[in-house]
Amino acid sequence: MLPIICIVGASNSGKTTFLEQLIPELRRRGRRVGTVKHDVHGFEMDHEGKDTWRHRKAGAQTIAISSPLMLAAIRETPAEMPLEQIAGRYFWDEDVLLAEGYKQSHFPKIEVFRSAVEAKPICAPQDNLLAIVTEDQVQLDVPRFRFDQVSGVADLIEDRFLKDRKRSRITAYVDGKKIPMNDFVQDIMVGGTVGMLSSLRGWKPPRKIDIQILLEDE
Amino acid sequence: MLPIICIVGASNSGKTTFLEQLIPELRRRGRRVGTVKHDVHGFEMDHEGKDTWRHRKAGAQTIAISSPLMLAAIRETPAEMPLEQIAGRYFWDEDVLLAEGYKQSHFPKIEVFRSAVEAKPICAPQDNLLAIVTEDQVQLDVPRFRFDQVSGVADLIEDRFLKDRKRSRITAYVDGKKIPMNDFVQDIMVGGTVGMLSSLRGWKPPRKIDIQILLEDE
Repeated sequence: MLPIICIVGASNSGKTTFLEQLIPELRRRGRRVGTVKHDVHGFEMDHEGKDTWRHRKAGAQTIAISSPLMLAAIRETPAEMPLEQIAGRYFWDEDVLLAEGYKQSHFPKIEVFRSAVEAKPICAPQDNLLAIVTEDQVQLDVPRFRFDQVSGVADLIEDRFLKDRKRSRITAYVDGKKIPMNDFVQDIMVGGTVGMLSSLRGWKPPRKIDIQILLEDE
Repeated sequence: MLPIICIVGASNSGKTTFLEQLIPELRRRGRRVGTVKHDVHGFEMDHEGKDTWRHRKAGAQTIAISSPLMLAAIRETPAEMPLEQIAGRYFWDEDVLLAEGYKQSHFPKIEVFRSAVEAKPICAPQDNLLAIVTEDQVQLDVPRFRFDQVSGVADLIEDRFLKDRKRSRITAYVDGKKIPMNDFVQDIMVGGTVGMLSSLRGWKPPRKIDIQILLEDE
């Protein structure tokens, strides 16, 4: 499963600026990085008058645009999609997912803190707080990094989540014939399948999943 | 599997304008519609300076933004993603996917044609052409609709692809316990799984797929 780490902090504490340092640091180490921004107000993506914009205004609930280099998709959601579902459905070939926000989630967190912005950190160690990034003195029993110590934060992420990562295994039989899949594809398939199943009621992370599909001709 | 219909035609023939009629017509009939635009040149999504834009500039290969009402994702792709993969990965709860472009694909097509723009239609009946939308006289052995006969085109799509649609069936066992899934969720799971598997070499649409996943603790 894809490791998810939330970069949290008060509004205007410098989360995005810190991510602008952390992402290239992880990239330099050969890690493929995905990000997800938690937006509580509603956002504008796309540009007025473009074909995809026109599709959406006409009533398409999901639109995508695909070019040789890039794919973008926008979908309406009846309710906010949980972070684990977003990870499973949209991030198949990343090594790590950095979320900006999601301070209420149970995922491990790194807080960006500036006392000029907020009186005290918004997280406590028991909130699954891994570390704090700040220039200020704080009384928190977690590792502390200054804003220019991004490589220390990257080390922490590597040690805790990326090194010696155990891999889940998937075997797929198509009409009884086993399909060869390398580790990379296995990760994609496991992430996608767990992402889909985890949206169902009563989901708990299991040890074993068996799926059988009987396909009908269209 | 999600029915895919490509709206094709020469550049500037009126594909988007026709989709702006067809999408609401299908919506009025209670159908959930997705669209995908084929872009051969490269597109701009997102807005300069936004947090997601900054994530991408910093090197994130996939970015997403999630709000209570909407989710958007942009990913870099090493090569153009095939239409069937896009359908499986991004469209789980639509009834029909209308693609703008993809005239080279094997999917059923509706051509939008204006003789003022192009001398003759770009498709022939053997290109899996279902119908042509035009005000012009054309010598093609497929149903012809004028631009204002959008309900006729919607009838054709409903009759051919949406009515009496046979459903594929999926059964999932999580730690040996069968997970209940309604038809809607089954469609999502089948579409997603087939979408992922269909990206593998040697894929042919099968009758039966069996998958086993052994999950490792992180």
